Amino acid sequence: MGGERDTAPSAPGRAEPGEAVPGGRLLISCRDRPGIVAAVSSFLHESGANIVRSDQHSTDPAGGHFFMRMEFTVAPGFEERGLARAFQDQVASRFEMRWRVHRAGERKRVAILVSRHDHCLLDLLWRWRSGELDMDLGLVCSNHPDLERDVRSFGLPFAHVPMTAETRAGAEAKLLERLAGGFDLIVLARYMQILSGRFLDAVGAPLINIHHSFLPAFAGADPHRRARERGVKIIGATAHYVTEEVDAGPIIEQDVVRVSHAHDGRDLERLGRDIERAVLARAVGWHVEDRVLVHENRTVVFSD
Amino acid sequence: MGGERDTAPSAPGRAEPGEAVPGGRLLISCRDRPGIVAAVSSFLHESGANIVRSDQHSTDPAGGHFFMRMEFTVAPGFEERGLARAFQDQVASRFEMRWRVHRAGERKRVAILVSRHDHCLLDLLWRWRSGELDMDLGLVCSNHPDLERDVRSFGLPFAHVPMTAETRAGAEAKLLERLAGGFDLIVLARYMQILSGRFLDAVGAPLINIHHSFLPAFAGADPHRRARERGVKIIGATAHYVTEEVDAGPIIEQDVVRVSHAHDGRDLERLGRDIERAVLARAVGWHVEDRVLVHENRTVVFSD
Amino acid sequence: MGGERDTAPSAPGRAEPGEAVPGGRLLISCRDRPGIVAAVSSFLHESGANIVRSDQHSTDPAGGHFFMRMEFTVAPGFEERGLARAFQDQVASRFEMRWRVHRAGERKRVAILVSRHDHCLLDLLWRWRSGELDMDLGLVCSNHPDLERDVRSFGLPFAHVPMTAETRAGAEAKLLERLAGGFDLIVLARYMQILSGRFLDAVGAPLINIHHSFLPAFAGADPHRRARERGVKIIGATAHYVTEEVDAGPIIEQDVVRVSHAHDGRDLERLGRDIERAVLARAVGWHVEDRVLVHENRTVVFSD
Amino acid sequence: MGGERDTAPSAPGRAEPGEAVPGGRLLISCRDRPGIVAAVSSFLHESGANIVRSDQHSTDPAGGHFFMRMEFTVAPGFEERGLARAFQDQVASRFEMRWRVHRAGERKRVAILVSRHDHCLLDLLWRWRSGELDMDLGLVCSNHPDLERDVRSFGLPFAHVPMTAETRAGAEAKLLERLAGGFDLIVLARYMQILSGRFLDAVGAPLINIHHSFLPAFAGADPHRRARERGVKIIGATAHYVTEEVDAGPIIEQDVVRVSHAHDGRDLERLGRDIERAVLARAVGWHVEDRVLVHENRTVVFSD
Repeated sequence: MGGERDTAPSAPGRAEPGEAVPGGRLLISCRDRPGIVAAVSSFLHESGANIVRSDQHSTDPAGGHFFMRMEFTVAPGFEERGLARAFQDQVASRFEMRWRVHRAGERKRVAILVSRHDHCLLDLLWRWRSGELDMDLGLVCSNHPDLERDVRSFGLPFAHVPMTAETRAGAEAKLLERLAGGFDLIVLARYMQILSGRFLDAVGAPLINIHHSFLPAFAGADPHRRARERGVKIIGATAHYVTEEVDAGPIIEQDVVRVSHAHDGRDLERLGRDIERAVLARAVGWHVEDRVLVHENRTVVFSD
Repeated sequence: MGGERDTAPSAPGRAEPGEAVPGGRLLISCRDRPGIVAAVSSFLHESGANIVRSDQHSTDPAGGHFFMRMEFTVAPGFEERGLARAFQDQVASRFEMRWRVHRAGERKRVAILVSRHDHCLLDLLWRWRSGELDMDLGLVCSNHPDLERDVRSFGLPFAHVPMTAETRAGAEAKLLERLAGGFDLIVLARYMQILSGRFLDAVGAPLINIHHSFLPAFAGADPHRRARERGVKIIGATAHYVTEEVDAGPIIEQDVVRVSHAHDGRDLERLGRDIERAVLARAVGWHVEDRVLVHENRTVVFSD
Repeated sequence: MGGERDTAPSAPGRAEPGEAVPGGRLLISCRDRPGIVAAVSSFLHESGANIVRSDQHSTDPAGGHFFMRMEFTVAPGFEERGLARAFQDQVASRFEMRWRVHRAGERKRVAILVSRHDHCLLDLLWRWRSGELDMDLGLVCSNHPDLERDVRSFGLPFAHVPMTAETRAGAEAKLLERLAGGFDLIVLARYMQILSGRFLDAVGAPLINIHHSFLPAFAGADPHRRARERGVKIIGATAHYVTEEVDAGPIIEQDVVRVSHAHDGRDLERLGRDIERAVLARAVGWHVEDRVLVHENRTVVFSD
Repeated sequence: MGGERDTAPSAPGRAEPGEAVPGGRLLISCRDRPGIVAAVSSFLHESGANIVRSDQHSTDPAGGHFFMRMEFTVAPGFEERGLARAFQDQVASRFEMRWRVHRAGERKRVAILVSRHDHCLLDLLWRWRSGELDMDLGLVCSNHPDLERDVRSFGLPFAHVPMTAETRAGAEAKLLERLAGGFDLIVLARYMQILSGRFLDAVGAPLINIHHSFLPAFAGADPHRRARERGVKIIGATAHYVTEEVDAGPIIEQDVVRVSHAHDGRDLERLGRDIERAVLARAVGWHVEDRVLVHENRTVVFSD
């Protein structure tokens, strides 16, 4: 209740697939040495692109690794043809850069894998629908049928692909039929099956996973019980890229919530759900806006 | 993805309306003086009730105000008849207590008023469906038709009662027809109309409202713009009981999130939505579990 | 700068050792069963004690473990003699309680062990001097001479007891001469030597230690480096009671701070220092106010 | 206690005044338009400076205001003479920039004003001594004599300049004698006197102040009491630049801590002190590293 104006929520500003969106994002990483920023920004300026946001990070200015993300807009009549080749020839090759450019209007195509816990899934669906997540959601797959109705109520296709430890190989093949080549990102929104290295290689897109975290950590079986036995005062969640070693990939985002002796197991589950969905949503949002660069086993996150 | 067991989520444990739930909660407030805890706990013990949780607060042990909340279970064969009268005669009258008891199985009947912003509404609906909120949700009313489909997809009735400053009196009368007598709590989940003191008196249930908060506060028109102009580094949300003075009722819960110069207006709205829905959900959850006592214009919250 | 009154800080209210302070704190733990609160509160009331704060916790009302802390004041002319025996006979033996009572005026005698990092030490000294920590600080011991001048500037004795892995036995004997019997609590404020189980048994007082925490944890050598290599987004600190197994004792308090790729090693050290001193100060403050109960390997903390 | 190495704390790396420190920081603000980053980075590169960190912010790429901070190092044999003029002629005048450059080795000279509360002062002194704050502390002034001994124990001069509302004019003149021209920053570390606009103009350095904040705010007299009466659940602190309008200058940093009904007035004061000193230390640290740019009445803070 309040004296504010009672108007429609601000339009979420979701660009339609075919809509022209000017400019884009340039992502660069290379060995750090003098002149990188000058070379890149001069090239962009001379090409008619205007840098509207720029983030840099260097692990060590003297021979470390350099990361840069630039958002740029372009003037009317901007001519894109030939630019990528010119950038490679005039700038990137000189600094031995790894680089890529994303046009702002090209949204990432995303699929979600989920098991039976719905909290992370529903949070992503709701944020996607409200326009918070700059992505095209195309499919939800689950190894259980439970969440089909929820998914379809958002107008999304749902695929049920049962999987157990015993049927992994065949099930992964079915998943690959649905996923490979069609998506730029796979989100594991509490997907409780372990995916093989073979699957990770074949799917052709990065995967983001969410899992709980404790301070200190309790590796192995039944971490909730052991964390409670030790009486931890903080529980958390970690979103990370998936690598073949389980839960050891580059961390994108983490957050925590305080707990006490007064919280029973059900309280911890509820608080854990809240922190998991918040952390996963942030990680996915940053990824689809090209804010996350991976180097060795860690991330550089140019969050806002 | 992970090595945990892939099972169904824990059953939410929602008691059905008719289901017998043993025990309840006893809420007490009175002037503080020696012997209160002893008198109450002895009475409960002798009546066959077992105190499983007890919270107390005294504003000042020497003549201040005392608040207590006790959760108790009862043994099989517990005889309730006559107990309330006995408690009043033997304990409450002696300490001039204000008190009430809620049986644990009697869930509060809740209605939600909303305008067009859906974030608080959807968060409440989702938590209610997942069993996190110990309440019976019976109706959603809005002064706009926009959210009807969302509400009905949760199996809930939706009432559209248009209201503007000009049509307030008539609209409030219609709202009262739907609400008065039927509900124990009304939640204003971003309801953007001001309700009259006459309405508040007639509706016969407390109302909880959510609004944004800034540090320092910017009362009056367009607080977002003025907070941005001052460059605040923290934004927040406040859930409070509704009183006739707008946004001045007893505060139940508040929380904040950090912001910076890099957040534009749309970022602030997104972060504001997240903190609003979290704060409102906590306030509603504590209210329906009888964890909030009001004294003068402030609350004692026995949260877990 | 501001329009507030420019007066002396509020007196810290430190009670002098000989000063009479009415009342105290009663700590109880036992198997949970009906009637405990009633029995204890009736006893206190009939003995002339007035409960001004009461905290309880039960791990499970049906046969779990019950914990209670009661603060009470006493009326003039209160007669203490014989009360402990009466409580044991009339209440404690019936419920097989472990219990203890602390008179509010009897402050705990505390010693601090430190190596060369001064941040935790100075924070404790400053809070002690300002009256925040309800304890009598009697001695600071270090295995290095570096911090002697700082300690003495607070009017405190300083003992230099060198210790290395090789000289541990002899050094521990010297420490015991200074500590054993004389103190109620030993605080390890970044004391970088491992103390033997024999020492822990002989010193006759609980020890509180502070150490860094990462999410996930990195056990073993050089955790800072490995945490940075994994790119953690959260670092923290854990204060715990010392047991013979290194860093595995009951946790009293934990807290965290966000970090990013932009924080270099020196930043992490600075942020780590801040969180360590805050967490240790809270843990010590709760311990000296008898707010921490230990059960199995976890704590129940009745913090305010 | 722990298995880490027991070595000296890492040297704080405080550069001595005469020591050569390569490079510096360039601060720029101007109306946003295409080509700024390219022009500045090309100039620096061609002058032999290597950009090691760069932060930008634009209020609106289309005609808004643009802010940039660049840290750079220089190669041996770097020739500084003539560079400032060249930058002005070749770059700054073209974009109508306001700009300044700080050599990294030139530490800001800082004075502190304090009344009787010591928490903010001692925190600054301790961080300064530990090398966390990149500044030269030259003087502490107080309108009370109480803290002289503490200040002198850090090897710093202390000036007692009594001031009341009645003696303001004369006292300000005395303060100006001690301060004007000699310092680059004045920190009001709980200085409880209001300084006149005349003083602020004459002192020739920015002033940073710390004050408590409540959510919602309680302007005017006795905010603590009124915040408690309303039952706020969050208290905070705000560090800001001082302008003639009391407590209305550009905000540099804010932070909060949760409170509850269980916190009495003394608890709130203790928690308020902790948050005040943390917020002030961050604001001062960012200022002396030239991380804060002021535009209209708000700040752009390029914190790490």
